[in-house]
Amino acid sequence: MAKESGEKWVLSVTAQTPTNIAVIKYWGKRDEELILPINDSISVTLDPGHLCTTTSVAVSPAFTHDRIWLNGKEVSLSGGRFQNCLREIRSRATDFEDEKKGIKIAKKDWEKLCVHIVSYNNFPTAAGLASSAAGLACLVFSLAKLMNVKEDHSQLSAIARQGSGSACRSLYGGFAKWIMGKEENGSDSIAVQLADEKHWDDLVIIIAVVSSKQKETSSTSGMRNTVETSALIKHRAEVVVPKRIKEMEEAIAKRDFPSFARLACADSNQFHAVCLDTLPPIFYMNDTSHRIISCVEKWNRHEGTPQVAYTFDAGPNAVMISQNRKTAANLLQRLLFHFPPASDADLNSYVIGDKSILKDAGIHDLKDIDALAPPPEIKDNASIQRSRGDVSYFICTRPGRGPVVLADESQSLINPETGMPK
Amino acid sequence: MAKESGEKWVLSVTAQTPTNIAVIKYWGKRDEELILPINDSISVTLDPGHLCTTTSVAVSPAFTHDRIWLNGKEVSLSGGRFQNCLREIRSRATDFEDEKKGIKIAKKDWEKLCVHIVSYNNFPTAAGLASSAAGLACLVFSLAKLMNVKEDHSQLSAIARQGSGSACRSLYGGFAKWIMGKEENGSDSIAVQLADEKHWDDLVIIIAVVSSKQKETSSTSGMRNTVETSALIKHRAEVVVPKRIKEMEEAIAKRDFPSFARLACADSNQFHAVCLDTLPPIFYMNDTSHRIISCVEKWNRHEGTPQVAYTFDAGPNAVMISQNRKTAANLLQRLLFHFPPASDADLNSYVIGDKSILKDAGIHDLKDIDALAPPPEIKDNASIQRSRGDVSYFICTRPGRGPVVLADESQSLINPETGMPK
Repeated sequence: MAKESGEKWVLSVTAQTPTNIAVIKYWGKRDEELILPINDSISVTLDPGHLCTTTSVAVSPAFTHDRIWLNGKEVSLSGGRFQNCLREIRSRATDFEDEKKGIKIAKKDWEKLCVHIVSYNNFPTAAGLASSAAGLACLVFSLAKLMNVKEDHSQLSAIARQGSGSACRSLYGGFAKWIMGKEENGSDSIAVQLADEKHWDDLVIIIAVVSSKQKETSSTSGMRNTVETSALIKHRAEVVVPKRIKEMEEAIAKRDFPSFARLACADSNQFHAVCLDTLPPIFYMNDTSHRIISCVEKWNRHEGTPQVAYTFDAGPNAVMISQNRKTAANLLQRLLFHFPPASDADLNSYVIGDKSILKDAGIHDLKDIDALAPPPEIKDNASIQRSRGDVSYFICTRPGRGPVVLADESQSLINPETGMPK
Repeated sequence: MAKESGEKWVLSVTAQTPTNIAVIKYWGKRDEELILPINDSISVTLDPGHLCTTTSVAVSPAFTHDRIWLNGKEVSLSGGRFQNCLREIRSRATDFEDEKKGIKIAKKDWEKLCVHIVSYNNFPTAAGLASSAAGLACLVFSLAKLMNVKEDHSQLSAIARQGSGSACRSLYGGFAKWIMGKEENGSDSIAVQLADEKHWDDLVIIIAVVSSKQKETSSTSGMRNTVETSALIKHRAEVVVPKRIKEMEEAIAKRDFPSFARLACADSNQFHAVCLDTLPPIFYMNDTSHRIISCVEKWNRHEGTPQVAYTFDAGPNAVMISQNRKTAANLLQRLLFHFPPASDADLNSYVIGDKSILKDAGIHDLKDIDALAPPPEIKDNASIQRSRGDVSYFICTRPGRGPVVLADESQSLINPETGMPK
């Protein structure tokens, strides 16, 4: 290092990385250690303006050990997922020089420098919205920038994969595919971009964050149990998914919404079917999730062609993808009709994200929700349930960009003098 | 006919037929008209003392057309399922003579005689407890007795099958297997008895009738949709079920409860998994069903060996099979702990059927339910939910006998003078 080791310089990088939602699901590993999946998967990247992780990473000769702070709280870095990513990035670090600051770090010296990592999600971690995917992807991306790693995004994706499987797909905007790969060492289990976020920019995404009292099975142990005990998972991974992957790639390439929706819904349902076929069975969806599906299915059937696709990850939250702003506004009306807010809620915190969809839906205050008429596809008014509080809130968003470096020093989460969280 | 046709004699037969619950499930037809399934299934017959259909059938030269009364209400007999059974039985009628009453009916004369059918379930039809299985089996059995049909039970089962698929298994006590058969005309798609009700008489069955606001998909249309749209049903029917059928037959033959329970639970879950894999997805289980499964799974795991098997048909009700009275009493304690009755309920109507299990569980009044301690397998008291009213009531029963003729005239549902419902 060029400067004296007693000197207290701090070198940092800040990056922002999106979450993603799979439309052809990843469920089941063939290698637990390397996180190698039993089938390909495809995802949509969500707009980081509404859902993302921001991570600052820094090195300094003054740091005495590697440390990490997640959402304001220091946590242990000893977990295998963090260590795998750190080790892989460090081994790929290259010579670095910042002439202005007078900092020079040779390839071999990176091993000796400790890192501080500070990470925030701009959405509640507990909401079950793939926070680990965005988090691990952001960790890998920011560390790679800091350490001057020359590898391209697909090679970085293989590193992020070892932190959290679905993190590898968060290295791209738009639509990403995680190729399962064949190699035992996992070198070909990487993510690639199918199309960027401008390719299909009509799509609008509404997420229903569903209230739940149930403690959920972690996806790590859940998918392990499924692989070990489900009599259907092998057929899904080997026969059903390969066909769907091809069809989904084609649907995305052609912006063929009916095919996209049909495949996304069927694959979400099949993922939850193999969870149910697990011993003991895993239930991620609850009665509210079921009612959301019924609402969308009824509407899609009524229109004769899909208006909205739904997909559920390892929890009860619904991610709904609409063909355009108009169908999104119609969807939001239906959702607010069936799932009005709890009586003490305010609209501003019940529908968050891109609020222009709310305006398009003609909803300006809570009274507009109370005044909503039943949608025309509901024939039997007696069967209408409007139970308040079953949905915690809605997020309106869209497909979004991949990771970016935030160059503005003011956005850093690390104090440039102390190297500690701001 | 021996008597003058103006004469007003009424000839009747009354029979009682049990319901059954499948432990390897029937889901999917290869022939909609003949009701031919895509896989074998195995069921336990439930004690008719607690759940059965009683049917009286009568002929009289005074009857002007075929009529049927179900649970006190006349309904149309024009449905295909009734007509199929009536036609098949009539074509097999033989010469009959009752010397005492002076009635003689030749084979060819049965076609000319109209029937009156009066049928009652001793349990709520709406509870979703396979009432059609017991009902159609009872119709076929009683008509066969009335018309002096010589065919054995397996041949009668093929007729009952054409009324309602699972009805064919209700012609036997104990354990029955519906062999799917290969013939296009369905002649080899029959039920056989695997073991009678004395073979494994330790078993105790507790049914939780679960409250539900959802309108359920009929099993007829549900299974049609599954066969047409599920990517997993073929693998289930062709690969998974044949293996399970063999293992289940063996478990029943050996009274091997752990294998019996493992297979029954896995097959129930897989049946619901293929429902979920259907387009649109079918949800029969609700959050209460899921909580019942979690309760049983947690206990089974805690004990290291299955104490109880659970199985769910096309609805949210749980059928739980315990190895013996002791485990049944322990199960009932757990169920009453998690699912106490609504505050206005009385114990007598909350737990019905064989109430001696309730006494074994030490429950004598509602206060005993309130006083129940959490079961030892529950480590995290904070996660305990005791929501009242999620279960409507429990039925305690056991495996039971097959159809019987009730010879006592007083048990007939038909007035012997008028030929009308009593």
